[in-house]
Amino acid sequence: MKNFEELRKKLKKTNEKKILTLVCAEEEDALEAVCIASKEKLIFPILIGCKKKIENIILEKELNFDFEILNETDKKKSVLNAIKLVKEGKTDIIMKGLIQTDIFLAAIVKNVSGIKRNHILSHIALIEAKSKNKIYLISDGGIIPTPSIEQKIEIIRNSINFAKKLDINIPKIALLSASESINPKILSSIESAYIAQMKWNDAIVEGPISIDLAISKKYCIVKEWKGRIRGDADILITPDIISGNILGKWATLTNNGEIAGIVEGAQVPIVLTSRASSINEKLNSIMLACGVSNEK
Amino acid sequence: MKNFEELRKKLKKTNEKKILTLVCAEEEDALEAVCIASKEKLIFPILIGCKKKIENIILEKELNFDFEILNETDKKKSVLNAIKLVKEGKTDIIMKGLIQTDIFLAAIVKNVSGIKRNHILSHIALIEAKSKNKIYLISDGGIIPTPSIEQKIEIIRNSINFAKKLDINIPKIALLSASESINPKILSSIESAYIAQMKWNDAIVEGPISIDLAISKKYCIVKEWKGRIRGDADILITPDIISGNILGKWATLTNNGEIAGIVEGAQVPIVLTSRASSINEKLNSIMLACGVSNEK
Repeated sequence: MKNFEELRKKLKKTNEKKILTLVCAEEEDALEAVCIASKEKLIFPILIGCKKKIENIILEKELNFDFEILNETDKKKSVLNAIKLVKEGKTDIIMKGLIQTDIFLAAIVKNVSGIKRNHILSHIALIEAKSKNKIYLISDGGIIPTPSIEQKIEIIRNSINFAKKLDINIPKIALLSASESINPKILSSIESAYIAQMKWNDAIVEGPISIDLAISKKYCIVKEWKGRIRGDADILITPDIISGNILGKWATLTNNGEIAGIVEGAQVPIVLTSRASSINEKLNSIMLACGVSNEK
Repeated sequence: MKNFEELRKKLKKTNEKKILTLVCAEEEDALEAVCIASKEKLIFPILIGCKKKIENIILEKELNFDFEILNETDKKKSVLNAIKLVKEGKTDIIMKGLIQTDIFLAAIVKNVSGIKRNHILSHIALIEAKSKNKIYLISDGGIIPTPSIEQKIEIIRNSINFAKKLDINIPKIALLSASESINPKILSSIESAYIAQMKWNDAIVEGPISIDLAISKKYCIVKEWKGRIRGDADILITPDIISGNILGKWATLTNNGEIAGIVEGAQVPIVLTSRASSINEKLNSIMLACGVSNEK
């Protein structure tokens, strides 16, 4: 995909309104993004949180949209309510509002009472690189601090699942490192080499590979790179949360390209933007969640 | 500094020609950059390497400049020759040509026979972020794979030394992490907290800190960040080589801003660009090395 305009067109194919549950809804920008998405007929929102605070924000910001509200002032209970809605099939998407990420995710990832579908939950950022005329998927810069090799494999599996929903059927996946060599001093480079030689039927997985070989054809020519990814990677897998986080945020803050983020691996898509994310990023992420949520 | 134009003006204050030794000079783009720098009267070049190959390139590319040539076909011996020139005070700068980085650096970092001045050598990239109208210093994305806490402290010291040469006297240094919290699962966040509370007289050192708080004032306002770095960091210290490498390369490949790189910590500045670096990056790096090399 070239840019968010194309992404938006692709996602608009689904005409059906999705039910989105905003957990701890007393957050201004989240409510504003939900209001816009609701007016665009993408979603019908359920707002869980302190009714009084939510209504005050809606009044103050003159947000005018239809919604259902569940009054719950306890943050942990708000998450449990949302989980219940997922289990009862009463919501298609959940979104984090004014609640700390770790508290929000703790109940969701629990093995029996939670709503994991895959082995792990992982974050996927969609970054529009204007000068490259391409959207890259970056994972994981949001959830797993220092993934084990098993978790890395699951991060990759989640990203392949997610890419399929965007019609990227055989994604090219670059396991990023500082260079294309296996360096015994860099554990992740050894792990990447191991992962890359596994059997992947539905993806091209290559690593360790430096980001220049992953995204620049020119560099591949100069370096005489013989790999299957030749500057045309679709998905960039970073070795840990810090490198993924730095890459995603730097791209957003300096490129002027658009961004969206989602959590993959639960029974429903999860919108997990930061409090400081722009309304546009929140709206993009909602749109993305609508596009990839299951048809009813 | 806002951009490379300003950097170039600042560095041009020194009028004196520097002697630059290009090690394993049989690399086309390196020779071309050296030729331009020589014509601009920034440097007088000494070329070490296979005389025949070097002369062939110069002939073929019609490079027209004055130089001295030392014929040496053995790559390791070429480095040793350059080290000898440094020790004899016969060169102001050394530059890596067509030789692997680890082989090039191995002899340089040796304790007695090498030419280290500081405890460690570290790489510093200068990245022009056009949309931010600022040049950031990024370290270390080039030399030390997984720095120990002692090495991180030295990486920071090297960056402070280097910043001073660019008249950034009290640099604001951000120790990057995925967020501003200390996470027991992320060792580097604990190390950053430790380093940040050390006594730093000549710099403001803060961490762990996410890159949005380091480079965006707006994010600091939204997140009600009370730190001393409020979106105005000068130097970004990454926890390891991979995150530094990804950040520097992504910035170069997508921002359309200029870039330069240098190795700090030796008796002379070292230009260490990759074979795939553009001629412009090589030229910028030579210019930078000239600007920060000691006055005679």
